[in-house]
This record gives sequence, C-alpha cells and structure tokens, in this order.
Amino acid sequence: MRVLIIGGGGFVGHKLALRLIERGTLRGEDITHLALADIGAPKAIEADFAVTAHALDIADREAVDAILEEDWDVIYHLAAVVSAQAEEDFVAGMRTNFFGTFNILEACRMRVPTPVVVYASSVASFSTDVPQPILDWTATTPQTSYGTQKAVGELLLNDYSRRGFIDGRGVRLPTVVVRPGKPNAAASSFFSSIIREPLQGEPVMCPVATDQEVWLASPRVTVENLVKVAEIDSADLGGIRNFSLPGMTITVQGMLDALKAVGGENVLGLVDHEIDPTIEKIVQGWSSRLETDVADKLGLDRDEDFERIVRDFMETDMRPAGA
Amino acid sequence: MRVLIIGGGGFVGHKLALRLIERGTLRGEDITHLALADIGAPKAIEADFAVTAHALDIADREAVDAILEEDWDVIYHLAAVVSAQAEEDFVAGMRTNFFGTFNILEACRMRVPTPVVVYASSVASFSTDVPQPILDWTATTPQTSYGTQKAVGELLLNDYSRRGFIDGRGVRLPTVVVRPGKPNAAASSFFSSIIREPLQGEPVMCPVATDQEVWLASPRVTVENLVKVAEIDSADLGGIRNFSLPGMTITVQGMLDALKAVGGENVLGLVDHEIDPTIEKIVQGWSSRLETDVADKLGLDRDEDFERIVRDFMETDMRPAGA
Repeated sequence: MRVLIIGGGGFVGHKLALRLIERGTLRGEDITHLALADIGAPKAIEADFAVTAHALDIADREAVDAILEEDWDVIYHLAAVVSAQAEEDFVAGMRTNFFGTFNILEACRMRVPTPVVVYASSVASFSTDVPQPILDWTATTPQTSYGTQKAVGELLLNDYSRRGFIDGRGVRLPTVVVRPGKPNAAASSFFSSIIREPLQGEPVMCPVATDQEVWLASPRVTVENLVKVAEIDSADLGGIRNFSLPGMTITVQGMLDALKAVGGENVLGLVDHEIDPTIEKIVQGWSSRLETDVADKLGLDRDEDFERIVRDFMETDMRPAGA
Repeated sequence: MRVLIIGGGGFVGHKLALRLIERGTLRGEDITHLALADIGAPKAIEADFAVTAHALDIADREAVDAILEEDWDVIYHLAAVVSAQAEEDFVAGMRTNFFGTFNILEACRMRVPTPVVVYASSVASFSTDVPQPILDWTATTPQTSYGTQKAVGELLLNDYSRRGFIDGRGVRLPTVVVRPGKPNAAASSFFSSIIREPLQGEPVMCPVATDQEVWLASPRVTVENLVKVAEIDSADLGGIRNFSLPGMTITVQGMLDALKAVGGENVLGLVDHEIDPTIEKIVQGWSSRLETDVADKLGLDRDEDFERIVRDFMETDMRPAGA
C-alpha cells in the first residue's frame, strides 16, 4: 500500500500522516511507502516504513505528472489556496484550486491501475442562498471563489470516477477547529484562534457576532474520517462521489462557553470583540446546518462535544502558555 | 448594442440571430453589430445592421482573446461539444466545454466594461440520482461528461458574476425539439428525429422505450427565452446566476401521438423501434421533471402543447417530403 498525501505539509495532512504511521495499514494492507507533498517539502517523519517528502506545486502540470509517474494506491488531495486568500487573489486560487485539481486528475487519468483519490472539498461550497439545512442533494451555490473552485473539483472528481479514471471520494470538510499553530489566510481561521490563543496565554480578537453559527469538526474526527473514507468499498458509493462529512453546529458563544468551562474566566478574558466586515460577510455566507445522511450511512464519525475538542487541543497540540 | 453569439452557426444560435435581426433591438437599444462565431464561420445573414461571421475555436485562448478585444455588450455562449460526442471523446469535450468556457470568461475578465454573458447550460447537468422533481436548488449531479462540463461552466459563470467580471446568466436548456436538419451527436438527437424524419417522408428508428419521459422546449420558445434572459435586470437575479428554463414533460408516446394527430397514420408508420442501450442509458440518467420557480418569477415562457411544436416545425423548418 503506497499512499501519497498532496497537501501533506498542512495541518490536516500532517495529522493524517501521523495517524497512518500509527496505524501502519490502509484498506487492509500494510503501508510500505507514505509520500508527503506540499508547496514546500514537508518535514520528515519517523516511521517503520519509507516516508518521503516532496516539494510540489500542483499548478505545475509537469511536476504533478512526475510525482504520479510512480504508482500510488491511495492519493489524498488536501492542497488548496484557502478561502480568504482565494478571495483576495483570484488568479492564485484558480491556479491552485482549479487547475491544480485538474492536473492531479489528469495525471491519474493517464495511469493504470486506478488510484483511490480522496479529495477534500469544503462546506464553503454551500451557501445560505438556498433552503437550509443543507441536504446531500442540495446545490453547491458557493459565494466565494474558494467554494466555487472546490465545487468544480467535486464535479470533475465525480466524472473522472464515473469514467473509471479514478476511484474518487470527495468529502466536504466542516471547518476544522481547533487548528494548532498560527492563524492562516482562511476566513474561518479565527474559529480556531479564539480558542487557541487564549489557552496559550495570548489575547485574540473575535471578528464576528457571538451568535454566529459554524459547522465544525475536530482535527481528530476529521483525520479519522479521512482514513475511513479511503477505506469505503467503492460499490457502497454509487454514482455520486461527493458528500458532506458529519459536523456539529455551534455558535461562537457556545465555543466561548466551552473555553470558559475548560480554561476558566481568566482565559476567556483574553477574547475581545470587534466585527471585521470582510470576514463576517464570508462566514455569514456559509451554511452552518447540514444533514449528512450519506456520511452517516457510510459509518463516518461525528463530534458531539465542543468541550472535548478544547481538551483534545490542550492535550495534543497546545504550545505552553507564553512559550 | 453590439451582440456576439458564440455558437452562432448552430441551430439555436442561427435562430437566435434571425430573431435578433427581426427585433432590431436588445436591452432597449438598437443593435448596431451582430457577430456570429462558430468552429466554422457561420453563413452570412442579411440585416439592417452589420452582421459579421467568424471562425472561432473557443479552446484556442488567443483566438478567444482576439474576438473579445472588441467591446460586446451582450455575449451569448452557446458553443459546445454535445452529449454523446463528449461521452465518446472525453478530451474533445473537456477542450471545448471546460477550457472553452473558461477561455471566454477569462477574456471577459480582462475587459471593461462588463458584458452581459448568457450561457447555455443544460438539463443534462441534473440527474435522476437525486430526489425528483428537480428544484432550482437541487444539486447538479451529472451522469455524463457533457453535463459535468456544463455544470462546471455554471459555477464559473456565477463566481465571475459575483466578482463583477461579467454580468452572467446561466440557463439550463431543456432538450430542444424539433431540431431541423440532420441528426447530430447529441444523445437527445432522436427526440427530434422521430418527428422530423417521418414528416419529411423518411423512416426513423426510436432508440428508447415509448414510456421514456423527456423535458423539452420548442426552438421558438427557447429563442424567445434567450432574448428575455439577456434583458433581465441584473438586480432581479440575486446571488445565484444559474437556473432552469421552463420546459414541458412528455413521453415518447405522447410525442408520437402528436405526430399522428398532426401528420396522420402513414407518417407515424415511418417510426420503427429498437432500443439502443448506449443512448437509453444516457437519456434515462436525465431528469424529466423540473420545477422552475426562478424562471417563472422572471417571466420566462413555457411550451404547453406538443402538437403546436410539431406544426411550428412544419411551417418554419420542414424540408419538403422526399427533397
């Protein structure tokens, strides 16, 4: 079993790599090679099998072809220019999210045998312009360029799968919270910052109203679902290869209540509030209530308890306060 | 008012050109120039204003840029590699339908002022894998490459409109029946053939069961709606620029009953039946029942009477029997 994670230097990709190394198997076979590719080569990880790191710009068709000249049994495509950046720089988003995804699929089309391709789409491909809650068969009517580019990737993934070029599975990730590290250019970045920064002893600004809802999942459940999604029997997927992963709906206030419950009053005191109209507009356009019948039937996991998510972060990802 | 019809050599494009010439105005302004572009230069048409014909392969980015160097107030994008052809030749479909549409939108993005772009999508972007009838907010889950490529175009059109690069309107055309001329490589081509050929004195094979339903519109109503769609005030469109045009649901048997009513028993006798599994599979994947609340609210037209469609064909498009 040879596994390639494109976007393997990102937060989710890195955690997925760690989980695969811990398991040692995927789809019932021993992993013999795990390759991590990202715009900059990801840092090496120790494992009982070969782990290699590759610098890869997926917008570069030849570079994509080169890495896919080797046979990969499972390819995770997690690489993206994120929402706020794709909104600010239209060309950059199209280059990576639109053409990059096309390049990966095209390289797979030229291959025998057919790889399993797990594609990370996003709840951002939905919008609040259609009846809520979002169902598995609700139209993707994205109100960001990022969501548009992700939804285009879904359509291609489905057609490439239907034609037998790949065995694709496109999953719309909820906003993943709590992300460790630094804020990034995703409009959703603050959903992690308002938990992470106070726990690490730093002040943070919340840029939306506290009654703003979000559809989120923890890193732990997201990674577990990405593993499961690769393992689903393709016969169980049918003609529609894209579906939403389970998530939980919570308000910013609910998140802050959990922060207080876990971290205490002083930690909560590090959160200040000032609306950022740009961020607020993007986030308000995202659906926060989804029904995930397809994913539920496939046995995928769901977070139920945001306090647990906060505690998970403290145990596995938190930098000591003031460090 | 300068109007460009890309796909102006096709059947719908040609009829649209004739209608615009007859009207002489669009969006309340006199038409001063009508340009018809197609893979082969369309034949010239007489008019009271300039009508020019252009050979254009929309997959050729430089050629698209060249024709869009001039300012067009309204651009119709009707050009496509049709369904059965895109299914048989994946690369040809991607080249024209995916990259061709991208090229047009990109050329528009470089322009000031912002053109109105009317994009012909298709009912083929829907499928029967989701609950029927299809609503305005039902997911496009196409089960053909043609439908996939059309649905990708819709997503791009919407995002380019949202960003103000174009003033786009994407309309999902029903199967247009009765097409004049020869059969083409569309899987839907027989829906016209089973009416046209018998009326023109020729035998024809019906490749699907007579209880097969289809969602169709006449050429007359389709062209009238394409004019109306260009004239809609962009403020009335909101954030979702793609919607289904009104159509009528009818079975093949219903079509043949109308053929008999209009043409008589002998004409009907020219229709023979033999299932073509390839065509049948494609057609069965198309939705035949749609609700079109958005289009209805915008005041677009709907066919109600298939006998009238047959008579319209005889009056305007029929070649004399045996000619």
